Amino acid sequence: MADDLTQLTADLRSFVRARGWERHHAPKNLVMALSVEVAELLEHFQWLTNEESDALDAASLAVVADEVADVQIYLLELADRLGIDVAAAVRAKMVKNAVKYPAPAGAPRG
Amino acid sequence: MADDLTQLTADLRSFVRARGWERHHAPKNLVMALSVEVAELLEHFQWLTNEESDALDAASLAVVADEVADVQIYLLELADRLGIDVAAAVRAKMVKNAVKYPAPAGAPRG
Amino acid sequence: MADDLTQLTADLRSFVRARGWERHHAPKNLVMALSVEVAELLEHFQWLTNEESDALDAASLAVVADEVADVQIYLLELADRLGIDVAAAVRAKMVKNAVKYPAPAGAPRG
Amino acid sequence: MADDLTQLTADLRSFVRARGWERHHAPKNLVMALSVEVAELLEHFQWLTNEESDALDAASLAVVADEVADVQIYLLELADRLGIDVAAAVRAKMVKNAVKYPAPAGAPRG
Repeated sequence: MADDLTQLTADLRSFVRARGWERHHAPKNLVMALSVEVAELLEHFQWLTNEESDALDAASLAVVADEVADVQIYLLELADRLGIDVAAAVRAKMVKNAVKYPAPAGAPRG
Repeated sequence: MADDLTQLTADLRSFVRARGWERHHAPKNLVMALSVEVAELLEHFQWLTNEESDALDAASLAVVADEVADVQIYLLELADRLGIDVAAAVRAKMVKNAVKYPAPAGAPRG
Repeated sequence: MADDLTQLTADLRSFVRARGWERHHAPKNLVMALSVEVAELLEHFQWLTNEESDALDAASLAVVADEVADVQIYLLELADRLGIDVAAAVRAKMVKNAVKYPAPAGAPRG
Repeated sequence: MADDLTQLTADLRSFVRARGWERHHAPKNLVMALSVEVAELLEHFQWLTNEESDALDAASLAVVADEVADVQIYLLELADRLGIDVAAAVRAKMVKNAVKYPAPAGAPRG
């Protein structure tokens, strides 16, 4: 599928390789780049109230989507460089979180 | 597939809903939580050289994978709350980046 | 004075030197450490409303003050390593900001 | 003195008040702004080696000094809003750190 992480990761790897960027992509550098992109996302929300942050207009949403993409891209590149399977890590973390924060009885199942 | 973003997002949404956490999940809050998780990832790399960051041992990698999962989880929850399709945003950004940074002629195709 | 930046910087430099930490204090590493400390500060505010963030109790304030200190310490260590005079940089920035954002006529002078 | 934190804080407070910005300066917002400024600092170092980060040229240093100023400004504004005495917090933290990380015998005193 077009939105599976394996395929996105493979396409990003080709992109990086075609430009010879692997030499810049030490995990230490990638995690800094990831952090910078998250801050660019943060910047859009810093002066908003919680309510305003839930009611972005279309133009703001388009900019925010672009920043979300940058965060996702660096996260996948970092994980790929380190040999981490992101989907498996998320699944494992959800199992841990389900134990740590049990759903209350009678809660909606989703 | 188990690693497609649509499925992961749906499962995370159920998890949040079952615990009644939507009321805490204003985008402004989620982007802060995302930023905190990225910093926990950063913390593992702050005193390493670039070379050391490329040679983590298995124990460190397991911890880092857990932090990568936290970043991915908050990113998907944020995007879901905002109605952003992460895979589509990544695809759109890759197209933009391919124009901005053309691959040199004769470069490996991936 | 006990609160001037020159004296604080000198005392921090002695502290670092007495422990032989200069070898870990490449600016790249210090700026990552600074970023991690800011995120620890951020963590205290991530689920609060703006109003709640203005009404911390004494116990929270003590913890936050401790994190503020960590941020200040790494910022001074970074500036010292780079040979930057923080107070002079702040004064210069305030002059720039006064031009960029002129105070409205009739505004309170402070 | 021109570089004591009490004076810098007072001058920043006047600056903010003259522009009517207090209403935007909830601690939650200021800590986000602080985080964004730290990321702008981080951005200058993300693709450098540790060695390169110790050998910035004059033009880069001027830009970095400007970002350091922004971080210092938001940190003082945050502390002022919360009623935290930054110099006292740093002094208290240095005492704690001296206990936590005792200097080795025979180490240079600074």
